[in-house]
Amino acid sequence: MSAGGKGWLAVAGLGPGDERLVTPEVTAALGEATDVVGYIPYVRRVAPRAGLNLHESDNREEIDRARHALALAAEGRRVVVVSSGDPGVFAMASAVFEALEDGAPEWRALDIRVLPGVTAMLAAAAHAGAPLGHDFCAINLSDNLKPWELIERRLKLAAEADFAMAFYNPRSKSRPEGFERALDVLRTVCEPGRIVIFARAVATPEEEIRVVPLSEARPEMADMRTLVLVGSSTTRVIAREGRPLVYTPRSVSA
Amino acid sequence: MSAGGKGWLAVAGLGPGDERLVTPEVTAALGEATDVVGYIPYVRRVAPRAGLNLHESDNREEIDRARHALALAAEGRRVVVVSSGDPGVFAMASAVFEALEDGAPEWRALDIRVLPGVTAMLAAAAHAGAPLGHDFCAINLSDNLKPWELIERRLKLAAEADFAMAFYNPRSKSRPEGFERALDVLRTVCEPGRIVIFARAVATPEEEIRVVPLSEARPEMADMRTLVLVGSSTTRVIAREGRPLVYTPRSVSA
Repeated sequence: MSAGGKGWLAVAGLGPGDERLVTPEVTAALGEATDVVGYIPYVRRVAPRAGLNLHESDNREEIDRARHALALAAEGRRVVVVSSGDPGVFAMASAVFEALEDGAPEWRALDIRVLPGVTAMLAAAAHAGAPLGHDFCAINLSDNLKPWELIERRLKLAAEADFAMAFYNPRSKSRPEGFERALDVLRTVCEPGRIVIFARAVATPEEEIRVVPLSEARPEMADMRTLVLVGSSTTRVIAREGRPLVYTPRSVSA
Repeated sequence: MSAGGKGWLAVAGLGPGDERLVTPEVTAALGEATDVVGYIPYVRRVAPRAGLNLHESDNREEIDRARHALALAAEGRRVVVVSSGDPGVFAMASAVFEALEDGAPEWRALDIRVLPGVTAMLAAAAHAGAPLGHDFCAINLSDNLKPWELIERRLKLAAEADFAMAFYNPRSKSRPEGFERALDVLRTVCEPGRIVIFARAVATPEEEIRVVPLSEARPEMADMRTLVLVGSSTTRVIAREGRPLVYTPRSVSA
């Protein structure tokens, strides 16, 4: 079946889970698509309809998936590659460009767009208060794609720079001890009272947010669905009934 | 006029400009609000309707604006504080919590929510490709609220950590030479070919994106509406007809 007309490829972010965080831009692209390509649980978030082909693939097959999507677009199909969160943050956009750079020269002439989304750290921060309200960094703690030594070095420099931090993929199945080592690195630079937020299954019905000082943070507080936020030295907690509010003030005095 | 029922306060992100990047969650909150509070150009993005009070205030009045919003919610009104982008990234959420912490004790019992949005760096990255596809940091270059020495130290450590970087507020009116000094700091650590992206008026009809090597980056390429992205040492450019695509690969080899 041909899609008719000119093909295109959109790499779209579905946000962290809640459908009310999917942008109208992404919803419109899905409405015009002939094909949706992505990791199984993300494709399952797209409502099936007549004329829409859903292509589910397993995790860790990003490059094959990206090539498949580019080839479909080159055939004239209207293709949406779906990621959770924002596609440019530890998600499919880079994989698509890696496949594009190494792929058929004619792919470079394709209409390719990246549609931004609400990445998990922004939803986690919002639901905890405003812990990323001052300078911050985002680090993927998975060592599938980079050496652990680089992760440790980045963590140390980020703590010395007094950034607030967001850790994606804190506990990988293949290297569960990595997160414990990350906490050890933080403890060498940060004071014991430094605020750590464990945000699990953010923006889903199973959301759980837990706020602890670094001295009480334990590796088993994070699993594969957890995003971890670490405050800067100025991050504060406002106590109240129920869960406290965590925020980082806008100012740092001289 | 009383709003009736229980008041609440939502701190909402309108995204960088394009209305198709406003989340349905934010649209729904605006639909239920009795009062919208914010900096003039952001309040003007909200469609007026009967029963909705629009409270515009000038820039640099964040704390007064936050107190006003909290006081309205305490009176039983349904208040949305609007920010551009994401409210938790260099925007109003931290100001609201600062006002809350220093304010009337009963304010802590209020229903306060932060509604995340697409922050400017995610839209700029998406429209340039995927330059934030690996570990990255976000730094506010304005020295209104922190000493310049801290900014320089953070820049240097971030470059040593080989983060991709997003700079918010690169050129403030009050200290236009700051960005030139920031480029100088980068040049002490990064190679001359390091990719710099100037993304102006992102996600508006005036959007302009310019990609240059660090050696050719000039302070006057940024103005008050520009977000600057700097690649890591691994960031790549894919040449093609029209604007090139910039991306940071997912992997760093050992």
